[in-house]
Amino acid sequence: MSATYRVTGMSCGGCSKSVTSAIQEITPGAKVEVNLEAKAVTVEGADEAQVRQAVDAAGFGFEGRV
Amino acid sequence: MSATYRVTGMSCGGCSKSVTSAIQEITPGAKVEVNLEAKAVTVEGADEAQVRQAVDAAGFGFEGRV
Repeated sequence: MSATYRVTGMSCGGCSKSVTSAIQEITPGAKVEVNLEAKAVTVEGADEAQVRQAVDAAGFGFEGRV
Repeated sequence: MSATYRVTGMSCGGCSKSVTSAIQEITPGAKVEVNLEAKAVTVEGADEAQVRQAVDAAGFGFEGRV
């Protein structure tokens, strides 16, 4: 099951890659899709607390579920 | 004492902030300066292994000392 979260501060492909890596560092095997324009990150295989922790550590803004 | 490392994959302010946050997550209190054009990250208060770990986890390319 996947969930979509609003994440602020991402503005380029490097940011997308960074958020993805940070989530997969905490939860290896998670599937992550980033939509920069929508400021949306869809994650399968990680719970909300894990996503929040990864996004915070990577310096982006976690704003909860969309 | 500070050291400067070459880090690839950073292309905007979000990337700079992400690398900085990732390093400070591993070594709170570290001072980090990012020069995007030079692909250079100067760090005071963290050792090379810590910087490498943080940069890898954040999805950027750690290429050692400049």
